[in-house]
Amino acid sequence: MIAEIIAVGSEMLTPHRQDTNSLFLTEQLNDLGVTVAFKTIVGDSLDHLTSAARIALARADIVLFSGGLGPTEDDLTREALAAALGLAITRDETLLTGLRQRFADRGIAMPPNNLKQADVLTGATILPNRAGSAAGQFLIAEVEGKQRIAILLPGPPNELKSVFTNEGRPRLSALLPPSHIARRLLRMALMPESQVDARTAPIYNQYTDIETTILAGSGEIQLHFVCAKPTLAEAQARVDELADRIEHEMGDDIFSVRGEGLPDIVHLLLGMRHLTLAAAESCTGGLLAQRLTAVPNSSSTFLGGAVVYTTELKTEFAGVPRDLIDTTGSVSEQVARALAEGIRARTGASFGLSITGLAGPGGGPPGPDEKKPIGLVYIGLASNTGTECKQVNIPGDRERVRLWATQHAFELIRRKLL
Amino acid sequence: MIAEIIAVGSEMLTPHRQDTNSLFLTEQLNDLGVTVAFKTIVGDSLDHLTSAARIALARADIVLFSGGLGPTEDDLTREALAAALGLAITRDETLLTGLRQRFADRGIAMPPNNLKQADVLTGATILPNRAGSAAGQFLIAEVEGKQRIAILLPGPPNELKSVFTNEGRPRLSALLPPSHIARRLLRMALMPESQVDARTAPIYNQYTDIETTILAGSGEIQLHFVCAKPTLAEAQARVDELADRIEHEMGDDIFSVRGEGLPDIVHLLLGMRHLTLAAAESCTGGLLAQRLTAVPNSSSTFLGGAVVYTTELKTEFAGVPRDLIDTTGSVSEQVARALAEGIRARTGASFGLSITGLAGPGGGPPGPDEKKPIGLVYIGLASNTGTECKQVNIPGDRERVRLWATQHAFELIRRKLL
Repeated sequence: MIAEIIAVGSEMLTPHRQDTNSLFLTEQLNDLGVTVAFKTIVGDSLDHLTSAARIALARADIVLFSGGLGPTEDDLTREALAAALGLAITRDETLLTGLRQRFADRGIAMPPNNLKQADVLTGATILPNRAGSAAGQFLIAEVEGKQRIAILLPGPPNELKSVFTNEGRPRLSALLPPSHIARRLLRMALMPESQVDARTAPIYNQYTDIETTILAGSGEIQLHFVCAKPTLAEAQARVDELADRIEHEMGDDIFSVRGEGLPDIVHLLLGMRHLTLAAAESCTGGLLAQRLTAVPNSSSTFLGGAVVYTTELKTEFAGVPRDLIDTTGSVSEQVARALAEGIRARTGASFGLSITGLAGPGGGPPGPDEKKPIGLVYIGLASNTGTECKQVNIPGDRERVRLWATQHAFELIRRKLL
Repeated sequence: MIAEIIAVGSEMLTPHRQDTNSLFLTEQLNDLGVTVAFKTIVGDSLDHLTSAARIALARADIVLFSGGLGPTEDDLTREALAAALGLAITRDETLLTGLRQRFADRGIAMPPNNLKQADVLTGATILPNRAGSAAGQFLIAEVEGKQRIAILLPGPPNELKSVFTNEGRPRLSALLPPSHIARRLLRMALMPESQVDARTAPIYNQYTDIETTILAGSGEIQLHFVCAKPTLAEAQARVDELADRIEHEMGDDIFSVRGEGLPDIVHLLLGMRHLTLAAAESCTGGLLAQRLTAVPNSSSTFLGGAVVYTTELKTEFAGVPRDLIDTTGSVSEQVARALAEGIRARTGASFGLSITGLAGPGGGPPGPDEKKPIGLVYIGLASNTGTECKQVNIPGDRERVRLWATQHAFELIRRKLL
């Protein structure tokens, strides 16, 4: 069974907006054992939309439409699907009553153009929308002798998720053979994709019943495993076996065996040992702290720290001697060590973590940092067993240098805590 | 003239990856006066890709393919377009020499499967790729009596941008009537989209020759204006006139009249007055500092600050009296004021900005903060003319509360600087 997702809306044909609903729908469909073979994005044109619907119904077993169910003249998905299938549209009294009630509850009269939100294709089942005024529709039709399933869903992501999860998915699932899908996600930081693939492909290629996807980006590599079996236990056992073998091969390079993010793992490892962390950041300017505090309940392990963007604040908040900065420059192993030790002493944290470097695009200021290359970053880690420092050279633009610098910092403390 | 963009690659039919190249290509095409009418995403299947190419060539004047030009068996865009148009493929000697040289430069032998990267469709012009091994191709063909333009581009975004900008766009532009497009982007923070639309629609609706798009998200509203005219001067005068009238209506609610981001504007306003800023953040945990330091050369106006996630650090880094926190809780107007004043005094900055609040999902700790609602945030701003404080209640999850809190903080100082 293959599916096509049609995202409807002219705004997704501008440089500013993208279809994101299809990512959610693809995951849901994969869970039911359905592969997405095509995605089409089409504007609010009846001709274009009708033709896209015809093409999709000819080549896919299941066609999902997102958007175009609103009350405006531009909302044409119902009309287009009716035209593609040669079906009539009738106004549904129950939907109409619900719509009128919805407006009455807010104390306003229903504008006449909302009437069309009660239009239903002949033979379609209504999928009630608890989150908005646009109901979905579920239709089984025969196209050129083949059974097709068409599902109309509202465009706003929260409404689409609610209508599909509560109404669309159960109906679709009932028409499909049972599917039991297990997934695992392993994550590694800072490794080249080619190296991960070279070491893991000989293993995962032995598991032809598991779909393996390697994704690289944002300073990490993800290995996704998906397996479908007659029972969930079988599928789970299979992905667990593969994950165990990959773990055995990659060892500590894997930071997460259940999909958690790198900051989550740092909090977890600190929390297990009742340890705390504070940070002093120069070139990352708060990014490390921001990523740590994006994790809920992070205050038990991350105390806070300082953004020491200027020379003066390196001295003021982390006690780095002014003489040292004048001699070695701000971007040096000595300053990284002093920052880590200083922030640890000032905050009383178990660990002090520091980042100082040149993120670009401009180079260092006149003085000792002037000739240092953009992308040069020092990371310091101070604890009661001493201080270590790592020097890295990160290629890329400002955003990439900053992000990778925080990845290196997280990896330094994670490996220390193992 | 309408265009279709076909993004090729099975990874974009998973829940994990999305086509992003089409946003860049759409902007480039719009600049040339070409509208994108369809986007199709298709996997690495010769049948699916050939059929998608046929459909696109039947309904669009210009068809751009991104991806599927690599050396692996899965890279099938050349073969699919050849099949769709009934064209032969020949191996190009010049491309082959370039590929061999590329590998020789790196001191490795060229794997045999790279040979196919020298395959060119009959009649196509080669679009050299300075950033990688996959060259693009540019082809004019007749399909059912109509002239069609097909452009093959490599999938990696940096290569696609380089090949299109340097090679594809000039060739395409030469075949199109001259188009002169002017754009303006106005940005407003923290306003409801409906309110912006109610106040601006009566104005922009008078400009039927300008395409207006309103986008809402991440705590701001963007108004995009695009206008095409026989000369650039006419187009520019037209969008400038509309932008001026919208500015007149919305006044200081508009933070940016040339598309700059809110942190950029804060830096700009501070820099013009030779003023500096420091920040003390509790619930945003470094997000404010991170957004400020994401702007290149931000160190002349942003000194840095402290992430005062714990009670102790509010005292240590910003001198907030422990008694005060014990009495009012960390989330209070008094603490926000003390944080702003404290960080200003400690850093010597012209302005001290502070954020303290409850981002959730958990509530406040036992004590004075225990019963305060999630989303309650206080923002303090201290300067040589005194200290002000703003209380806001931000609905939504942790990520949203944190982002909107920084938007409120930026707006507070921006309006102070006007």
